[in-house]
Amino acid sequence: MSIAAPIDRRLVEQIVRELVLRQVGGPPDRPNLVVSISARHVHLSPEHVEVLFGVGHKLTVMKDLYQDGFYAAEETVMVVGPKRRMLPTVRILGPPRGASQVELAFTDGISLGIDLPVRPSGKIEGTPGCVLVGPKGVVDLKQGVIRAERHVHMGPADAAFYGVKDGDRMGLRVHSGGCATLFENLLVRVGEKIKLEVHLDTDEGNAADLDHAAKVELVKT
Amino acid sequence: MSIAAPIDRRLVEQIVRELVLRQVGGPPDRPNLVVSISARHVHLSPEHVEVLFGVGHKLTVMKDLYQDGFYAAEETVMVVGPKRRMLPTVRILGPPRGASQVELAFTDGISLGIDLPVRPSGKIEGTPGCVLVGPKGVVDLKQGVIRAERHVHMGPADAAFYGVKDGDRMGLRVHSGGCATLFENLLVRVGEKIKLEVHLDTDEGNAADLDHAAKVELVKT
Repeated sequence: MSIAAPIDRRLVEQIVRELVLRQVGGPPDRPNLVVSISARHVHLSPEHVEVLFGVGHKLTVMKDLYQDGFYAAEETVMVVGPKRRMLPTVRILGPPRGASQVELAFTDGISLGIDLPVRPSGKIEGTPGCVLVGPKGVVDLKQGVIRAERHVHMGPADAAFYGVKDGDRMGLRVHSGGCATLFENLLVRVGEKIKLEVHLDTDEGNAADLDHAAKVELVKT
Repeated sequence: MSIAAPIDRRLVEQIVRELVLRQVGGPPDRPNLVVSISARHVHLSPEHVEVLFGVGHKLTVMKDLYQDGFYAAEETVMVVGPKRRMLPTVRILGPPRGASQVELAFTDGISLGIDLPVRPSGKIEGTPGCVLVGPKGVVDLKQGVIRAERHVHMGPADAAFYGVKDGDRMGLRVHSGGCATLFENLLVRVGEKIKLEVHLDTDEGNAADLDHAAKVELVKT
């Protein structure tokens, strides 16, 4: 073994890590559960896409996500925090949406020097900002850097099955031996044409060793 | 805000992050509970201390840990994984012990390219190795790189209070709003003159937002 270039996180986590586990057993009508781990990523407004990548630029689909219409883009940006620390290649998720938002794990926040608030996606009022650097320009984002609050997406039929409604809280039990974990207080988000899917971040996925989990289970707590 | 030196993790996590939360309320005889988050660190054999830092070298105490006789040392080593990725300054914990061991979080393992086994401290047979680089020499460690299994240390009186014995499993409930988490299957380690203390790693501490937890609770599961 020879010695040692600096860590190249571009090689490590440049794609969205979407790990899928299916809940097995239970009543025959139980909905199929998917648990996905979102690595750090950025949502951009249409305006910021053009600032960062050039006028008229459209994001390129690299990989479709589990929810219909959403995708990981080929494009990445540099996220720069205070103290001139940065993450060089953070994946953009599409399609573009109203306001730009940067979703990081606490581990990322610590490395950037940003004290991340835990927020549901879209609730970014008063959150920290950062600088986004793309090949064609720079955005000085005034707010929108968060740790996304753990949550579960579902459709109306799933909500009826579990007896929950939008805004309720549920638990996710991960059976993985010495790393077994019950994630409490997952925010329930109900929407039409939405598939049942839990979103965790990389810290949560790593804490529970989700890669080696034998079983996952959505529970009312 | 100006643009951007590479991330300097040396500035970020070079000391052991020891976060202490006390369990409140409950019966008056309930033992005081401390929860500590161990950042990545290295234990060294006396022989490896001399290879890395020079013949006759003794580790220098930087900070005493919660358990009597244990400390974070001034000394750090570079940990080099396969693919020439490395962590430049990983803290050494003292005192030296029988076999060298490297304890990393999965986040660290992913960045190094090492698929970490989850093991209790000391059970390193068949685990991956790495290269350790110090100011005076290099150790090609054949095994000993692990993710430490979450665990709780306690003395005989604490074990009697909770009705558990060495090798049993307990749970740690962290009350922290949207990040509330029950860590299951903590390995119980009972020893004479040991203070009650849960050890989590940084992924677990971050997943549960332990820094902002209102309460922690040790539970039989």
